[in-house]
Amino acid sequence: MKHFLNTQDWSRAELDAVLAEAAAFRQGKASQALKGKSIALVFFNPSLRTRTSFEIGAFQMGGHAVVLQPGKDAWPIEFELGTVMDGEAEEHIAEVARVLSRYVDLVAVRAFPKFQDWSVDRQDTVLRSFAKYSTVPVINLETITHPCQELAHALALQTHFGTPDLRGKKFVLTWTYHPKPLNTAVANSALTIATRLGMDVTLLCPTAEYALDERYLGWARDNVAESGGSFRMSHDIEEAYTGADVVYAKSWGAIPYFGRWDQEKPIRDAHKHFIVDEAKMALTNRGVFSHCLPLRRNVKATDAVMDSPQCIAIDEAENRLHVQKAVMAALATQ
Amino acid sequence: MKHFLNTQDWSRAELDAVLAEAAAFRQGKASQALKGKSIALVFFNPSLRTRTSFEIGAFQMGGHAVVLQPGKDAWPIEFELGTVMDGEAEEHIAEVARVLSRYVDLVAVRAFPKFQDWSVDRQDTVLRSFAKYSTVPVINLETITHPCQELAHALALQTHFGTPDLRGKKFVLTWTYHPKPLNTAVANSALTIATRLGMDVTLLCPTAEYALDERYLGWARDNVAESGGSFRMSHDIEEAYTGADVVYAKSWGAIPYFGRWDQEKPIRDAHKHFIVDEAKMALTNRGVFSHCLPLRRNVKATDAVMDSPQCIAIDEAENRLHVQKAVMAALATQ
Amino acid sequence: MKHFLNTQDWSRAELDAVLAEAAAFRQGKASQALKGKSIALVFFNPSLRTRTSFEIGAFQMGGHAVVLQPGKDAWPIEFELGTVMDGEAEEHIAEVARVLSRYVDLVAVRAFPKFQDWSVDRQDTVLRSFAKYSTVPVINLETITHPCQELAHALALQTHFGTPDLRGKKFVLTWTYHPKPLNTAVANSALTIATRLGMDVTLLCPTAEYALDERYLGWARDNVAESGGSFRMSHDIEEAYTGADVVYAKSWGAIPYFGRWDQEKPIRDAHKHFIVDEAKMALTNRGVFSHCLPLRRNVKATDAVMDSPQCIAIDEAENRLHVQKAVMAALATQ
Repeated sequence: MKHFLNTQDWSRAELDAVLAEAAAFRQGKASQALKGKSIALVFFNPSLRTRTSFEIGAFQMGGHAVVLQPGKDAWPIEFELGTVMDGEAEEHIAEVARVLSRYVDLVAVRAFPKFQDWSVDRQDTVLRSFAKYSTVPVINLETITHPCQELAHALALQTHFGTPDLRGKKFVLTWTYHPKPLNTAVANSALTIATRLGMDVTLLCPTAEYALDERYLGWARDNVAESGGSFRMSHDIEEAYTGADVVYAKSWGAIPYFGRWDQEKPIRDAHKHFIVDEAKMALTNRGVFSHCLPLRRNVKATDAVMDSPQCIAIDEAENRLHVQKAVMAALATQ
Repeated sequence: MKHFLNTQDWSRAELDAVLAEAAAFRQGKASQALKGKSIALVFFNPSLRTRTSFEIGAFQMGGHAVVLQPGKDAWPIEFELGTVMDGEAEEHIAEVARVLSRYVDLVAVRAFPKFQDWSVDRQDTVLRSFAKYSTVPVINLETITHPCQELAHALALQTHFGTPDLRGKKFVLTWTYHPKPLNTAVANSALTIATRLGMDVTLLCPTAEYALDERYLGWARDNVAESGGSFRMSHDIEEAYTGADVVYAKSWGAIPYFGRWDQEKPIRDAHKHFIVDEAKMALTNRGVFSHCLPLRRNVKATDAVMDSPQCIAIDEAENRLHVQKAVMAALATQ
Repeated sequence: MKHFLNTQDWSRAELDAVLAEAAAFRQGKASQALKGKSIALVFFNPSLRTRTSFEIGAFQMGGHAVVLQPGKDAWPIEFELGTVMDGEAEEHIAEVARVLSRYVDLVAVRAFPKFQDWSVDRQDTVLRSFAKYSTVPVINLETITHPCQELAHALALQTHFGTPDLRGKKFVLTWTYHPKPLNTAVANSALTIATRLGMDVTLLCPTAEYALDERYLGWARDNVAESGGSFRMSHDIEEAYTGADVVYAKSWGAIPYFGRWDQEKPIRDAHKHFIVDEAKMALTNRGVFSHCLPLRRNVKATDAVMDSPQCIAIDEAENRLHVQKAVMAALATQ
C-alpha cells in the first residue's frame, strides 16, 4: 500500500502521472474517484489553504473530509512506544490510527516541528507513526516536508513555461527574513522537487548556518545525478538572482540554533535585506516569483512583487486543489 | 458581479424575488442550484444559527460549505494596505480572498466590530476587503449590518400577516438592556428593512445617545421617501408600544461611548425596564414579537413573552435557512 | 417521537433490530436512509471516534452532519428555567433546541458531568433539556451514560462469539486506575447492556465507594430479572477474573468524593494494580478484552494486552460507525 509522505518516495513516472491528472482537473475534468469515500484531515497546526483545498477536493470527487484537531476538539495523543501514559496524552497513536483506518479511506496529517531539538524533529515521528499504524494510505499535509506544495509549485511552473519539461531553467530558492524562526519543510520540499525536475538550482541563504538538513541536501544531489541539472548553495544575492527563471522564497530557522532562538535572532535580524523586491527581480531573466503562502507582505516580499504579473503564488495556491485531488484519486484507487 | 453586503445595495425587485424564492423553499421546493459548488464560511466570531443554516442550506442544494475561523484554525489576517507585516498577522487579505476565490464559488464573512472606535468599525473593513479582493460573490454574515437576518425577519412578518405587502404596519424597534454593549448591526438592519418595506417605523431607545449611525438613519429616510411609510425616534415606551403591529427587540451599545464603556454602563443599567414584557405587549395591536437570537431570557424579554404565541423568533430563525438558500442560489447562478 | 437517550428506554426487540441492521452495515450493506437529511452533533466536550463515526455515517447514508461546540464556536447556553440570564450564557436551551429542530432532522449531544456534585450531574440536565425542547429525535453522544458505546460493544461480542445470544457468558466490568477522576458513563452503560443481554456480570472495583449510582444498579437488577443471568459486585481481582469470557475495563471517579477529589486521590493511587495485564487475562476462559477508548496504555491496560489478539477494542470502535448508522436510520424513518 502506497502512502504520500514525500515525493522522493514516488517514481518520476508516478509524479508525472499525478501532475498530468492535476492539469486535467485544472482544465475542468470531472472525477468521482472518491464517490462514497472519506478522508480524515488531522491538523496539529492551523491551516487555510490545505484544509479548504482538501475538503473541497474530496467533495468535488464525491467524497467527504472530516477535520480533526487533536488537543483542541479531539484528545491529545501519545506517540512514544512503551510509555506509561500518566501525562497529558489520553490515547496512543496505535489506537488513533487503527480506529481512523476503520472509518475512512485516507488519513492526512499536518504536524509541524516542535523547534526545540532538530534531532528529534527530523525523525518526523507523528507522520511516521500514522503511516506505521494506519491500514489506509497516509498523506503528508506538511510536517518537515510539504510534498503537496511541491506538486502545486511544479504544476504552476509547467503551466507558466508551457511545458512539463523544466530542465535547464535556473531556479533560485531564497531564504527571507521572518520575525519568527519557521519550519524548513517548504524549503526542503522546494529543493527536492526543483532538483527532481532537473532544474539548475541555487539555494540562496545568509550563511552556511542556514543550510538545510543533510538528508535533503543528499536528496538534491541524488536528484541531480538522476535528472541532470545542478545544485549549489550561495550567499551572494546579486549573483544568485542574475539570470534566474524562477525565484521561490521561504523563511526558515537555522538548524544549529533549534532550541536557542534568542541566539539566532540577531543573525536573522541582520538579513532583512533578503526581502524579494523589484530591484532583485530586475536581475532575473524576466523570472517568475512564487511562495507557498501565508506570506508577510513587505517582510518576505514587497507589495510591488506580490502584485506584479510575475507573481504566480495565487496560481500555485489554486493548484493545491488540483494536485491533491490527483493524489487522493491515485491513493484511493490503488 | 453582485455581492450581498447589504439589502440597500439590492433593488426592491431583487429582494422581492429572493423573498418569494425563500417562501417557496419553506414550502418544500427542492433546488440543486449549488450542485457541485461550494461556499467558504469565514467566522471571526461565534455562530450557531448562521453557521448551521448556511451549512445545511448549501448541502440541501447539492453544495458544500467549508467553515474557517481565522486566528483559531486558520492564520491571522492583515487588512491594511502597504503595512510591513511584522506583527501577528501571517498573511494579507489580498492573498486570502484571492486564494479562497480559486477554491470556492461563494465567500461569506462574519466580522463583528472591535467596539473601541466606531469611526474605524463603521468602515466595515473586513467585509469590504473581502469584497474588494474576492473574484467570487461575497455574503455578509453580520458585520455592522446583518442583511440575512433582515430577510428572515421580513419573511416571518409576510407569513404572519399573510401578505408580502407590509405597508401601513406599525413597526417598533426597541432597544433593550444587556449586561454588555452589543453590536448595532441588527438594529441598523431592522431599521433598514422595515423602512424599505414601507412600514411606519419607530426607533425606541432610552436617550438620543442610543440613536444609530447617521448612515443608517439616512437609509431609513431614503427608504421612507421611496416606499412610503414613516420613521421617527422615541424615548417614550408606552407611547411607542401603543397600537404596534410588530415589536422587534435588540440591545446595542451607544455609539458615543465606544471605547469607554465604563461610562456608558450606569446609563444602560438605568434602563433595564426596557425589557419586553406582557404589560408592554398588552399595549400593542395584538402585535407580534421577534428577536434575532441569541436572546437572554428575563433580561431582553420575559419568559412569558418568549413562550407566547405572539413570539415569532423561532420562525424567523428557521427562515434564515430559506432566505440564505435563495441568496446563495441568486448569487451562484448570476 | 422516539429519542435515543438510553438503551434502557428501548425494547429488547428494538435493540436487537438495530444490532442486526448494524451487522448488515458492517457486512457492506448500503443505505440512503438519511438522503437529503441532516444531524447536528453538539459537543460540549472533545471527541475523536464519536464525531468522526457520526459524520462519516451520516455521509455514507446520503446525509450531512453539522458539528457545533457551544462556548467555543457557538454561544454558551443556559439550561435552568426562569433564570434572569445576566451571566455568561447568551441564549437558552429552549431557543437552541427549537431552532436546531427547524434546521436538522436529528440532534445529538455530548455533555460530560461537571464532577462537582453528583446529585446535580445525575439529573443529566443538558441531554434532558435537549430532549424536552427538541421537536426532532435526540441522540446521546455520552453524558452520564453512553448508549452508542453499549451497542458497539454488544455487536463486537456477538461477532466474536459468533452468536447474538450472549446468555451464560461471564462478563467482568473492572475499574482501572487513571490519574484523573473520570466519568461513570461507560461503566453505567456496560453494566446496563451486559445485564440486558443476560450475561453473568461482575462489577469489580477497589472498594464499595466505587459502586455505581443506584439508578444503574437498579437497571442491572431489573435486567437480570427480565433477561436471566446474574449481577454481583466484587473487590477480589483474582476471583473476578477467573473463568471470565469478557473483561471490559473502565476507570471512573468514586461518587462519594465528587467535588473533593483530593480526598479520593490517595485511594485511587493505592489501586494502580487494577491495571489489566497478561497475568490477570491468563486467569480468564481465554476471554476477550475491550475498552471504549481513549485508553492510556500501561495505566489502564498493558501494551501486551492491547496488542494481543484477545483485544477487540478496535473492532468495538469500528462498530460505533455501524450501530450509529442503524440508530440514525431507525430514528430518521420512524
